[in-house]
Amino acid sequence: MRQSLLFTKTRKEIPKDEDSINAQLLIRAGFVDKVMAGVYTFLPLGLRVFKKIENIIREEMVAIGGQEILMPSLQPKENWEKTGRWEGLDNLFRFTSHYSKIDYALGATHEEIIVPLTKKFIFSYKDLPAYIFQIQNKFRDEKRVKSGLLRGREFFMKDFYSFHKDEKDLDLFYFKKGKKAYENVFKRAGIGSSTYFTFASGGTFSKYSHEFQTISSAGEDTIFLCEKCKIAVNKEIISEQNSCPDCGNKNLKEEKAVEVGNIFQLKTKYSIPFDLKYRDQDGAEKDVIMGCYGIGLNRLIGAIVEIFHDKNGIIWPEAVAPFKVHLLNLSKDKKNRDFAEKIYKDLQISEVEVLFDDRVDATPGEKFAEADLIGITYRLVVSDKTGSKVEIKRRNSKTSSLVSKKDLITKLSK
Amino acid sequence: MRQSLLFTKTRKEIPKDEDSINAQLLIRAGFVDKVMAGVYTFLPLGLRVFKKIENIIREEMVAIGGQEILMPSLQPKENWEKTGRWEGLDNLFRFTSHYSKIDYALGATHEEIIVPLTKKFIFSYKDLPAYIFQIQNKFRDEKRVKSGLLRGREFFMKDFYSFHKDEKDLDLFYFKKGKKAYENVFKRAGIGSSTYFTFASGGTFSKYSHEFQTISSAGEDTIFLCEKCKIAVNKEIISEQNSCPDCGNKNLKEEKAVEVGNIFQLKTKYSIPFDLKYRDQDGAEKDVIMGCYGIGLNRLIGAIVEIFHDKNGIIWPEAVAPFKVHLLNLSKDKKNRDFAEKIYKDLQISEVEVLFDDRVDATPGEKFAEADLIGITYRLVVSDKTGSKVEIKRRNSKTSSLVSKKDLITKLSK
Repeated sequence: MRQSLLFTKTRKEIPKDEDSINAQLLIRAGFVDKVMAGVYTFLPLGLRVFKKIENIIREEMVAIGGQEILMPSLQPKENWEKTGRWEGLDNLFRFTSHYSKIDYALGATHEEIIVPLTKKFIFSYKDLPAYIFQIQNKFRDEKRVKSGLLRGREFFMKDFYSFHKDEKDLDLFYFKKGKKAYENVFKRAGIGSSTYFTFASGGTFSKYSHEFQTISSAGEDTIFLCEKCKIAVNKEIISEQNSCPDCGNKNLKEEKAVEVGNIFQLKTKYSIPFDLKYRDQDGAEKDVIMGCYGIGLNRLIGAIVEIFHDKNGIIWPEAVAPFKVHLLNLSKDKKNRDFAEKIYKDLQISEVEVLFDDRVDATPGEKFAEADLIGITYRLVVSDKTGSKVEIKRRNSKTSSLVSKKDLITKLSK
Repeated sequence: MRQSLLFTKTRKEIPKDEDSINAQLLIRAGFVDKVMAGVYTFLPLGLRVFKKIENIIREEMVAIGGQEILMPSLQPKENWEKTGRWEGLDNLFRFTSHYSKIDYALGATHEEIIVPLTKKFIFSYKDLPAYIFQIQNKFRDEKRVKSGLLRGREFFMKDFYSFHKDEKDLDLFYFKKGKKAYENVFKRAGIGSSTYFTFASGGTFSKYSHEFQTISSAGEDTIFLCEKCKIAVNKEIISEQNSCPDCGNKNLKEEKAVEVGNIFQLKTKYSIPFDLKYRDQDGAEKDVIMGCYGIGLNRLIGAIVEIFHDKNGIIWPEAVAPFKVHLLNLSKDKKNRDFAEKIYKDLQISEVEVLFDDRVDATPGEKFAEADLIGITYRLVVSDKTGSKVEIKRRNSKTSSLVSKKDLITKLSK
């Protein structure tokens, strides 16, 4: 894409009403726009990051058998009354339409929709297990919003639901396939090494639920880490049990962390209110056993920025960067400009995603500063000094090198 | 995909609370589920159709220079007050949060968000024209909902906005590029020949707006068609002007039709309330001139079903069918079953999208009936009678033929 055509621009000043690093950098670099507290628009660069993360998540959910659907945000009051959450869930947006006079909830989560849905299709043990997910916008009436994209009133979430014949089958899926898929997502998104499987309170139906917590100074949560087992417990748990749930180690390391995913063994919590049962092989009617598995996309993007930035801007992990390459032409000389155009075209032919800073009214200093702020993995420079070669530098490296166009294409189109 | 794993099932009975053909067939065939009046879930088959249509629309919008963004549904009251639509737009969902005590609108359209957004980036004639679009869920508090997916309270829409320095530039884009992109979308979605560019009332700012109307008995609209010019006028217009706006022909043909797209010359209707101006080459400050361009995705899917069905089910146009091929194995014989499996694998290797009815507990009659209901373009049958060949039939054809596996792969992977 040509930067001269991109309708967004970067900005130097830090937005006054944002105190989090993630929102400050994402707004300054033109990835998001703040509409109001807790509500953001994804701009072209931000939407590219969003789609990359969405695709990573989708691939991993499909790999464990997930079938994708798309449920609505407008939801009927009756369903939320059945589970006790019409009154019971503090941050549920609920309202009466002034025109159609109907009471609606705005989807904060989708158990109240998916369970009545599956009741139309699950009858027998032959229909189990079933794995269903969606990637969709959620609404939560947070009393206070903070931390930029980490906690918003509207945000995108992947919610995955599993349906099983018994707890043993749920356990197998939850601890083997579900957990592994989450580890794959965070690894591919670049935060695998800083993300820990964390024991959290399970509520009425389960001893534990589990969070995936990423170490970051911007996090709202405190976790207690067993460095031997590479697992953690959260604040709720540590008060009851101040040791590693796996090895019993009591020497746990305290850290602030961001929750980037959570998984729950719902068991019969939502199947009972909706009477979701199945007939077993012996003809007996039994409750369907459920698990649920969430990842907030806005939050994941925010967490990545909190972890990967320096004083000059964002440093995207390659797999989620808006483009692989940021090509800067600094020369006003026609020969060099044509050379930069040729590189742009050749990279496109080789299917390398490239943002081409072809602007004629920006100085080299401005172009370098904006490239650092935007944070694309490879920066290429064509200037009066680079001759027949191109300067290449990784965003997170201090040194650059000169390469021929041919070597460049070979290297980048791998 | 293996049909034995698909969590949805088709149903024989017609849903009692749906009187439209599109909702009846889409629910029976397992493409959508009705959550409540005017609100549907897209199930796996339906989401595949949705994504194909979404991709067609996206490609055509990008081809005319559109830059994709993603705006929120939660919108601030102040913005809607500025345009007079907080009180003025009947079907705007608006409510006060019980928890954060903030007044919100739920996005029925996004002029109130995109104009303040572009005000942060458009300053000079150099920043124009700009073309921005999104594909996103919309909410409209319709007093009554009807016609299945044709009119809902929550639905997906592609909304594209263009920003120009003057009306001449808007006219050029609107009548050349915008109109052409819409024609391409409807042509690719299979309804090109039944869709007419229709003159509609323009409101205060423009003589006309324009609708794309598809001839269908399920439509809510009446259009008056000039068969010579292949354009139409709608009911509002015919009362003022009962002739073709292009050639003056008074012999117009009356039809019921479905509106599948609409485009407006907004001019300064929304730029004035938000004071969206730019500085021209001569330094003078001028109002930005706008156009907007909408396509409802749910409505387009509903219209396609209304046009393409028979008494047995849906007949998807190939480009939007959930799969290209529906492979049915009717044999219980191991050799034939293995042959069907081999065809399934070879089609997948050749990147042909295939739904494989591998179920062992459905009769041939049930499989044929379900294949007709689901409406995938090519039906392949392996049975005890087909020997070393495969029976192939198009959904809209009465005759089938036997082909070898090799010829089949060659034909379908084209």
